[in-house]
Amino acid sequence: MVRKKRSTKHQRPISLRSAQRLTPLINPAAAMPPLSCFALLLRPLRRLPPPRSRSLSSASDAAAATSGDSASGPDLDMDLAAPTFTIWGSNTGVGKTLVSAGLVAAAALAPSPSSFLYLKPLQTGFPSDSDSRFVFRTVSSLFRRRLSGDPAARLPPRLPPPPPRLPAAAAAAEPPSSYEAARIGTGERDDGELNKLVCKTLYAWNEAISPHLAVEREGMAVGDAALRAAVGSCLGSFVRGLGDEWKGTRVWRVIETAGGVASPGPSGTLQCDLYRLPGILVGDGRLGGISSTISAYESLTMRGYDVTAVIFEDNGLSNEVPLLSYLRNRVPVFVLPPIPKDPSNDLMEWFCESASIFSSLQETMISFHSERIQRLRSMKRKARNILWWPFTQHDLVPEELVTVIDSRCGESFSIHKVRHGEEMIVPQFDACGSWWTQGPDSTLQTELARDMGYSAARYGHVMFPENVYEPALHCAEVLLGGVGKGWASRTFYSDNGSTAIEIALKMAFRKYLLDHGILLDYEKGILSERCIQLKVLALNGSYHGDTLGAMEAQAPSSYTTFLQQPWYSGRGLFLQPPITFISNEIWNISLPDSLQSNQLKPENLRFSSLDDVFSQCRDSLAIARIYSEYISEHLSKHSELSPSTHIGALIVEPVVQGAGGMRMIDPLFQRILVKECQNRKIPVIFDEVFTGFWRLGRESAAELLGCLPDIACYAKLMTGGVIPLAATLTTEAVFESFRGDSKLMALLHGHSYTAHAMGCTSAAKAIQWFRDSSTNPNLDCEGKRLNELWDLTLVHKISSLPNIKRVIALGTLCAVELKSEGSDAGYASLYASSLVQQLREDGVYIRPLGNIIYLMCGPCTSADFCTQQLHKVYQRICDFDCGRVKESESHENASEPQIIAA
Amino acid sequence: MVRKKRSTKHQRPISLRSAQRLTPLINPAAAMPPLSCFALLLRPLRRLPPPRSRSLSSASDAAAATSGDSASGPDLDMDLAAPTFTIWGSNTGVGKTLVSAGLVAAAALAPSPSSFLYLKPLQTGFPSDSDSRFVFRTVSSLFRRRLSGDPAARLPPRLPPPPPRLPAAAAAAEPPSSYEAARIGTGERDDGELNKLVCKTLYAWNEAISPHLAVEREGMAVGDAALRAAVGSCLGSFVRGLGDEWKGTRVWRVIETAGGVASPGPSGTLQCDLYRLPGILVGDGRLGGISSTISAYESLTMRGYDVTAVIFEDNGLSNEVPLLSYLRNRVPVFVLPPIPKDPSNDLMEWFCESASIFSSLQETMISFHSERIQRLRSMKRKARNILWWPFTQHDLVPEELVTVIDSRCGESFSIHKVRHGEEMIVPQFDACGSWWTQGPDSTLQTELARDMGYSAARYGHVMFPENVYEPALHCAEVLLGGVGKGWASRTFYSDNGSTAIEIALKMAFRKYLLDHGILLDYEKGILSERCIQLKVLALNGSYHGDTLGAMEAQAPSSYTTFLQQPWYSGRGLFLQPPITFISNEIWNISLPDSLQSNQLKPENLRFSSLDDVFSQCRDSLAIARIYSEYISEHLSKHSELSPSTHIGALIVEPVVQGAGGMRMIDPLFQRILVKECQNRKIPVIFDEVFTGFWRLGRESAAELLGCLPDIACYAKLMTGGVIPLAATLTTEAVFESFRGDSKLMALLHGHSYTAHAMGCTSAAKAIQWFRDSSTNPNLDCEGKRLNELWDLTLVHKISSLPNIKRVIALGTLCAVELKSEGSDAGYASLYASSLVQQLREDGVYIRPLGNIIYLMCGPCTSADFCTQQLHKVYQRICDFDCGRVKESESHENASEPQIIAA
Repeated sequence: MVRKKRSTKHQRPISLRSAQRLTPLINPAAAMPPLSCFALLLRPLRRLPPPRSRSLSSASDAAAATSGDSASGPDLDMDLAAPTFTIWGSNTGVGKTLVSAGLVAAAALAPSPSSFLYLKPLQTGFPSDSDSRFVFRTVSSLFRRRLSGDPAARLPPRLPPPPPRLPAAAAAAEPPSSYEAARIGTGERDDGELNKLVCKTLYAWNEAISPHLAVEREGMAVGDAALRAAVGSCLGSFVRGLGDEWKGTRVWRVIETAGGVASPGPSGTLQCDLYRLPGILVGDGRLGGISSTISAYESLTMRGYDVTAVIFEDNGLSNEVPLLSYLRNRVPVFVLPPIPKDPSNDLMEWFCESASIFSSLQETMISFHSERIQRLRSMKRKARNILWWPFTQHDLVPEELVTVIDSRCGESFSIHKVRHGEEMIVPQFDACGSWWTQGPDSTLQTELARDMGYSAARYGHVMFPENVYEPALHCAEVLLGGVGKGWASRTFYSDNGSTAIEIALKMAFRKYLLDHGILLDYEKGILSERCIQLKVLALNGSYHGDTLGAMEAQAPSSYTTFLQQPWYSGRGLFLQPPITFISNEIWNISLPDSLQSNQLKPENLRFSSLDDVFSQCRDSLAIARIYSEYISEHLSKHSELSPSTHIGALIVEPVVQGAGGMRMIDPLFQRILVKECQNRKIPVIFDEVFTGFWRLGRESAAELLGCLPDIACYAKLMTGGVIPLAATLTTEAVFESFRGDSKLMALLHGHSYTAHAMGCTSAAKAIQWFRDSSTNPNLDCEGKRLNELWDLTLVHKISSLPNIKRVIALGTLCAVELKSEGSDAGYASLYASSLVQQLREDGVYIRPLGNIIYLMCGPCTSADFCTQQLHKVYQRICDFDCGRVKESESHENASEPQIIAA
Repeated sequence: MVRKKRSTKHQRPISLRSAQRLTPLINPAAAMPPLSCFALLLRPLRRLPPPRSRSLSSASDAAAATSGDSASGPDLDMDLAAPTFTIWGSNTGVGKTLVSAGLVAAAALAPSPSSFLYLKPLQTGFPSDSDSRFVFRTVSSLFRRRLSGDPAARLPPRLPPPPPRLPAAAAAAEPPSSYEAARIGTGERDDGELNKLVCKTLYAWNEAISPHLAVEREGMAVGDAALRAAVGSCLGSFVRGLGDEWKGTRVWRVIETAGGVASPGPSGTLQCDLYRLPGILVGDGRLGGISSTISAYESLTMRGYDVTAVIFEDNGLSNEVPLLSYLRNRVPVFVLPPIPKDPSNDLMEWFCESASIFSSLQETMISFHSERIQRLRSMKRKARNILWWPFTQHDLVPEELVTVIDSRCGESFSIHKVRHGEEMIVPQFDACGSWWTQGPDSTLQTELARDMGYSAARYGHVMFPENVYEPALHCAEVLLGGVGKGWASRTFYSDNGSTAIEIALKMAFRKYLLDHGILLDYEKGILSERCIQLKVLALNGSYHGDTLGAMEAQAPSSYTTFLQQPWYSGRGLFLQPPITFISNEIWNISLPDSLQSNQLKPENLRFSSLDDVFSQCRDSLAIARIYSEYISEHLSKHSELSPSTHIGALIVEPVVQGAGGMRMIDPLFQRILVKECQNRKIPVIFDEVFTGFWRLGRESAAELLGCLPDIACYAKLMTGGVIPLAATLTTEAVFESFRGDSKLMALLHGHSYTAHAMGCTSAAKAIQWFRDSSTNPNLDCEGKRLNELWDLTLVHKISSLPNIKRVIALGTLCAVELKSEGSDAGYASLYASSLVQQLREDGVYIRPLGNIIYLMCGPCTSADFCTQQLHKVYQRICDFDCGRVKESESHENASEPQIIAA
């Protein structure tokens, strides 16, 4: 701040005139020392041991960023009671503090009374520099000047800082300075009145350098979470401290940042990654200032912030002209008169001259704030009027149950809520992983945002067939080197899981027809289409997407009824699979009736650990033979019954069926299924749309299962969770079956945005992020699996509750089936509704699958965070009304196919 | 540049010692005046009349930006013969020129000989400031110092500027200064040698202010295209001028920008929107420098540029530590020793001290450049090995025909090409609109890129069902206020055209079943599913996407064969439509046999203008009655033949069938079709995936047709062409048919990324951009239609060529069907291959639909640009071998359904 040093030269004593009108928060007994003593009142700087030495290595920094407190993003409730803005600078020394002081002055001089919190979270060069002090004193001086002829005028007193009221997390560094005053004004309403002014500094360091460097040199480290908590607490307590009398009057809160927008905070995290609030950008009117203002603006917008206005000092270069042109007049630009360069100038004239500009800026801020609130309030109603949500019976969603999402950061949404009559923005853990797509922590989200800008600017979208461009090629390389490693050699892109499946089916059928000589017979005219009925082999409870082709490959369910899709016929042989789950702390395998056998001992169906369930040693046990016979028998019976029908593909979701009710299939059963099909030259399709990319603790579920497909489909988590993209990976042999001399032999399937650059860019980035131990702290030492994210003791406790039927916990997924029956079970069940609402109140955004609730985190989410969330679930389940659950209900019922969906 | 003013104080005469070794380009006869006379040699500044006063209005600026020369983006070939980098500054005064000089010095001192072009396109403060002169003299001084003891040393001479060799476009402002030298060195190879050094300024102004302001004050306006052309020409001629002797040695080209990255150029366009090249960012080592360096870096990356390295002056603040952490070590950061602040210091010591850093920087640049080239060279092969392109018979695409796309800007790709043995990046007009999705000009592309960053950072992806967030709601409002205006009230989001169609069919069938009492009978058990066969009414030649449900709604084609999709059965009643096209300068209607009637006079089938074809006056003519009877007859016959079959929906692509061969259906026929269906309570679906958003000159094709659907599908151009998103819009009546008390009555269809924030953000932006006359200069005065983009005279000339069957030109589309027959016609035809290759050589990236070629621009593309491209097509068609075309072929054949596709 260019003026702050100079300001210390104009210290004048101010006498306390209005002690009798102070609010109780402020101690009227404290005599006000002359302003020249300000520094003496400040708390001594605490000196902590220096933090561990900062490393240049991106690896360790990234790990710290993701595992540390910065990963959780916005961790505080934020009330919307008052306009709250961050004051950003396009550089250091552009006048952020002058603008802040101007805003306070404008509030003080406004016709209606108001209260103002000026907050400087990070101050360096302290105590000789104190922006809080400067702002406080400037306003004092302005009033003194304005009211010098008026004996009734109330000038701001200066009081010692109140006792610290910060949460425990912020206690490490107490606020070093705070200046408070009550009732500044003439007493004439139309002359303005400031009910309360608080100018507060949270953390301060001696040297006038960047906070991260000050920490390194002076100690007193502050974590991001502690800093955010302290800021949040300060913002909240200011409003609460005003008392009822001042409700309804104008209240202001501004947070002045330190340095430029991307200057590091004390932990090294850039400040623009710390404060997620609307902002005012103090630009630069000097030569070069257009550029630095635009770049700073872009750094803020590419972090998802709203820049409400730009303001800067006029330097005679008309920088506002290109700025307004760049901003297309959508963001107002304010130009302040030149700041006097004479150090003896006390700036009072300048502030008077600028008063109307600050008033206009304030009007802009007020209208932004009130429009934002109006919009947030109206969104529920508008949404119900014009949106058509998928999988939603609109009649069952009253307006009050609509969730208004203001933003997302890492694993959490921020939602708009009215709580105890107060409007708030509160965080909610996105426990449905926004339908299983989410992976990014807040650091990756920021990186992806930058990459999305890069990719859109560099490529937009370009033609893919017969062409190549870096993102499409690179993403294919990353896929084939990861989930495709050891088997796949080709990448076919599409838009979502459903299209990836349709493509996989077309591929598999061609391969089957070729391998079995049917294609040749067909081409020779020996066989007609009518004599060849192709079907898939699949499992009950499966789900592959909602387009017709994908639906035809799944067993009948709620989605496939005549009501939903009159064209569905179910072109598959659907087997009933054995499923596995934890109940009473033990992994159980539940067999369908047709697989019950007296050859099986109970110990073959019970396991103390998940590793035992997956163990390949089981392949030689009796159960393996039983599975094998069961599959063979069904295949033979099917071909006997309809000789023209061919099973042209096996399609399974490996390990876990998602939309089918988070059912884990006995992995041994799926391994045998794959083997039986490959023995018969039936191409095997793995639908890894849900299970891929560490969802289940390994990069692919195929890896977990221990066998390889011919074709596999990926989507959802593939792009890290920002954008739709799908890929169907295949072996070279499958690809070969489409080669020929005619285009008509080629795979004639595609979508407009095939291999779109943004999707491929984000996928390549996210996949590498998840599999790199320098960015994903959850990887085990070999980098092959995720460490346990869900506390096993807690999982076992839940699995033993009387109202719980089954639990599965692996990788990023923890699912719990509530005991229920009749219409309380299944897809349309509203059984879990009250539980869901309670958990949302707890900050956990659950979306149930009927009577199944689940938590889903990202591959990089910390185990601590997961366990905190799971604990909330445990508590609520304990309290959940289980009166309707019959004790007699057996676990075997868990094997019944649940018709359940997203 | 912090040092440039000081440098003028150290002017020393340098004598010419090596004139005998000068290359012919340089005039050895010109005596070299002392350096103090530099300024005298420069061309006087030309003073042009000041440009029209700049307006603050975003509207006029935007219109200027889109209609002006900046809209066309990269308009020059760029060779890859030498590393070519832009030197960017994170602010003004950070030392760009010192870095440039350091790079020249490092090249001169490198063990192998090299040539160096230093280019300063824009210089202000001239002639007292000249960065070209500074760089030239610094290198001279360094050599003088280094070689002071060596009489054989060759010092750089200083010569008058060569005669201007700029293209006509750049002639407005001739280069004001140029310094050239040949052969600088000791003669010892290992001591380094600079074959040739050229330091050149292109445009200069007196006042030391931003170029845009200098133009305003001094005149000498320079357009973006002229500037780019001048830069391109200069880069190219430097390499060509080196002659063969120096081929294979190291050649360097650097372009030093003026001010900061986002400082405006002479036209007001930001410099970061002008130079699309890899860059070196000169950062800032001072307090605040971390922030300004990061923000500048972000402004470059969000424009799709590669920043190869960051370099800055050490100020003792260790700014490299947070910078490296931010960059995750992926971009090297170089720290230069502190620059002496003493004005008498000639910096020679500093340059010597920095030499190793500049060498390292240079190594980084060389390895970036060579890795880039290696990658570009290897991409074709890699693409053929691991990608699986849609709609492509890989055996028909040899490696040399693969197109490597380096980037996209507005309407054009930049592709990698080897031309006459030289590697180039050359622009190609994306005439296939990257499969019909493209809308953005370069200005919109930059805005969308920024918005994509904002949206990814603010929302990532969040849960949609039962929720609402700004982009999803806003996009729905924009859709319903535009293409849905007057009929639609609900927006259902999905991922692409195919899914939007599947959803539309499910909606239509439900509505039909409800309206006709079938749903009630079904629920009561009176009717079983087996007794209700639902079909669509559709047209031959239609196409709605590649997922099974969408395919079932289209007539048999190449895509639907048993080879492609064994599950296809074609669940429709498919009518043969009359089509319309230009032939011999006249719009004709071609009727299928079944519609031929002796009641029709020839004049009913010929029109002099497109408006006449669309005229609603035709609704009362005989032809309307004939159409109506034809449709009724088919519907009656169909229901007689199979009483259990119901026509549950009409589905058409309004006005033009895209993948079916760019066939325009007689709009009267489609109007009658809609009327007949609505009379029978058959829901009408418009597939506007291809036709929507001004593709055909109106915001929707429904508007053009003059009738409204019950359901319509949108995708492709909807997001402006950067990202997949689709929307199915419906009337409230359709929505109502899914209401009820059970979730099972709801529409159970959805995709993971439903209503993803980036898609909705870009859609809302693009739709508004296209329909706003301040950003779209092509709108007519009412803002209702696009002005003609294709020169009608030229279109008529093409329609009269003997080898042309038909032409259609409306909105952004101009399609031409070549006369051909047998295997030369239809989807698999390779008939147009040679024409396509020729046009690609001309810079027009055509992708044919069999024997149909087409050009497709964006809604904002200028008519001039379109006509230039169409002229190339005209020329090539004139030359095209038409030997195989039979003169006897009649136009009636054009009505045969073409089995043709993307």
